[in-house]
This record gives sequence, C-alpha cells and structure tokens, in this order.
Amino acid sequence: MRIAELSRRSGVPVPTIKYYLREGLLPPGELTSPNQARYEERHLRRLRLIRALIELAQLPVASVKVVLEGFDSDDLPLHERIGTVHRAITPHRQVTGDDEMRAVAAAQVRELVERRGWAVQPDAPAITTLIETITALRALGQDRLTGHLDAYAEAVERFTDLELAAVTSYAEPDQIAESVVIGTILGETLIAALRLLAQESLSARLLGPASASDG
Amino acid sequence: MRIAELSRRSGVPVPTIKYYLREGLLPPGELTSPNQARYEERHLRRLRLIRALIELAQLPVASVKVVLEGFDSDDLPLHERIGTVHRAITPHRQVTGDDEMRAVAAAQVRELVERRGWAVQPDAPAITTLIETITALRALGQDRLTGHLDAYAEAVERFTDLELAAVTSYAEPDQIAESVVIGTILGETLIAALRLLAQESLSARLLGPASASDG
Repeated sequence: MRIAELSRRSGVPVPTIKYYLREGLLPPGELTSPNQARYEERHLRRLRLIRALIELAQLPVASVKVVLEGFDSDDLPLHERIGTVHRAITPHRQVTGDDEMRAVAAAQVRELVERRGWAVQPDAPAITTLIETITALRALGQDRLTGHLDAYAEAVERFTDLELAAVTSYAEPDQIAESVVIGTILGETLIAALRLLAQESLSARLLGPASASDG
Repeated sequence: MRIAELSRRSGVPVPTIKYYLREGLLPPGELTSPNQARYEERHLRRLRLIRALIELAQLPVASVKVVLEGFDSDDLPLHERIGTVHRAITPHRQVTGDDEMRAVAAAQVRELVERRGWAVQPDAPAITTLIETITALRALGQDRLTGHLDAYAEAVERFTDLELAAVTSYAEPDQIAESVVIGTILGETLIAALRLLAQESLSARLLGPASASDG
C-alpha cells in the first residue's frame, strides 16, 4: 500500500508517519520509484504498536526507540531482550536527598525480594524505582502504603501468572518476545486504568454526592 | 531557611527550584529583603512531592501543575479534587482508527463495570484509556490478555482495599486528599516496579541462563 493508505488504515496523519520513518521507529518501505514507497501489513502493525506506546503507555519517543530495538534484536537471547525493554520503561534515577532513608528502604526491598523468592538482579532498574518510591512515600508521611508491600507483591504476582499463561501459549521466540513486550507495557496501562476506575468508584461511594450517577 | 538550604535538604539544584517557582509549582517564599526569600518546611515537603511526581511517576510538568492545583483547591469537594487528579494523570485520547473494534471494546468495558458494580461516570478518562488499550491489544493480536479483565479487576480491587484502609486512618479532609493523591500516583509507580520485578524473576527462571545470579 502507499503512505496515504497506511495513514487511512492506521488513523495516523502522513506527516507523523514521515516523522516516525525519519526517527527510525518505522522501517522504510520498499521504493517503487525515486519518491514513492510501498508499505506492507507489517508496517501497519508496527505503526499501531508505536501509537499505543506513545499515546497509551505515554512513553517518550526515545524510549519507544529503545523498546523497538529490543523487540527487533533477534540475535539477543529472549531474557536479554526483555531486560532491554524493562530498562527503557523504568525510571531508575536516584531522586532522594537522604542517604539514610534510602538505606532503610533498600534493606526493606532486599528482604521483600528474598521473602518472595524473586530471582532478580540486585541492580535491576525496578529495584531502584522501588527503593526511591518507598523513600519518597515515607518522606511525604505516607508510611501506611509502604507497610503493605507483601500484599501488593502478592496481587502483582497474580498479574504475572495471568501473563505467563498468555505468553506460553505461543511457540515461536519472536511471538513470545512480542507478547511479553506488548503485555508488559500495555498491561501496565490496563492495570493503571482499572485501578483508577476502582478508586473512582470507592471515592464516589464514600465521598461523592448521594447518587453516583449524578453530574 | 534560605534557598541554598532548601536545595541542600531536598537535593534539588537551586536553578531547578527557581524554575519550579517561576512555573508556579512551588509557592513563593516570604520575602525578607528585595532579593531574598525565606522558605518553610512546607516548601521542602512540596519540593519532595514535585520531584516524586516528575522523576518517579514521570509526569510532565504541565500534569504536575494540574495535580498540585487539585491538591490545593480546598474549596472543592474531595471527590472532585480526586477527579481532577485522575484526569491529569490519565491518557484519554482516542487513538484507534477502527470504530467497529472500539465499539466492541466499549461494550466489554461497560459489562465489566456492571459486573464489578463500580460506580463510575461513563465518560471517566480511565474508561477511554481502557477501551483504547483493549482495542490496541486486540489490533496487535494480543487477545489473550484482554480475556482476563475480571481477574485483573479483582487483583486491582485488592490494591484499592489496602489504600482505603490507609486513607481512612486520617481524620482531616486535607490529609485524606494528600494521601489519596500521593497514593494514587506513587502507588502506580510502586505497583509497576513490583510487577517488573515479578516478571524479571519469571523471565530469569524460564528463559535466563542456568543460574539467575549470573551476569
């Protein structure tokens, strides 16, 4: 198909598609004349993925690029491809000024990982995020949430069990990689949206006007 | 305290603090001379919150501004303040080109909300996110995940139950608002980090090198 049809079928404007081509997010089409290219179904599919990562998962273009590189690197073992994606989507900067508070949170995370029996690298980006988030919650006087880490971890394991069942239904490494990457990133968007709805419902019941269908 | 001490105690560089002041994220200090201001503990606390929202929750500055406005609007009922925050952190653009697929997903979400008995507005931003995410997953051939919405919703309700217990331990509306806002946003960061760790562990066991402590 030509770029106009690619745009029509994906709902993405032509200038945006050209931007993704320039940035290397979308692989080039096959040139049929010096200034015309032909695109395939795989381009449409990739375009949908790019849109989902930018618009729904709200990833910056630079992170989308890293995710797609991890996605495409067939020569890397699957476990490492997944690791690349994790690093691209996880904030892992130290943001806490207080080293002592960070040390306390780090010990708490270490113990949690041990209790859960999680096989994770001690320098996994999500470890840093977890330590910093616990420290921030505590610095902001919200200790109560950080007292329930095990209950949170247990609920989270239910997600990964569901996802494991979905992923292992695929046979090819490429299908598995695709499913893991999409499931990881869009799964987070899905969980966050469900959580906001459950919260809104609770807030409406406890704090809202008498009838929740008002307004 | 002076701005230098505020910077030292928060770990935030002075130019960044001045940027937050200019953007109206941080309220001005009390002027003690034409070009010197005094800051209080509440400034330090607000600065920590801003950093957590930007660095950990990865919110853009514009969204942080809306969140803080919701946070500060004591004159609005609590339920509406929470709604403001939800809108600020939820992507709710339609990104799907396919109206038919969107209609199917919308019906699925409507039925889910009914089954869960959630009291939510039909135009809640998270409803749009959910519909678009389900449509995107399906368009990308990842139907298996969207087949487990109820299991996801059930796990998510465990989070909100935990958070409800934390929130209702406060007496003052302002404390409740603060706890809800921080818990909503940083709670999501916490859940996302835990989920990545659980995933990494699963990936290491199933796909990684013989010993997960390698590398």
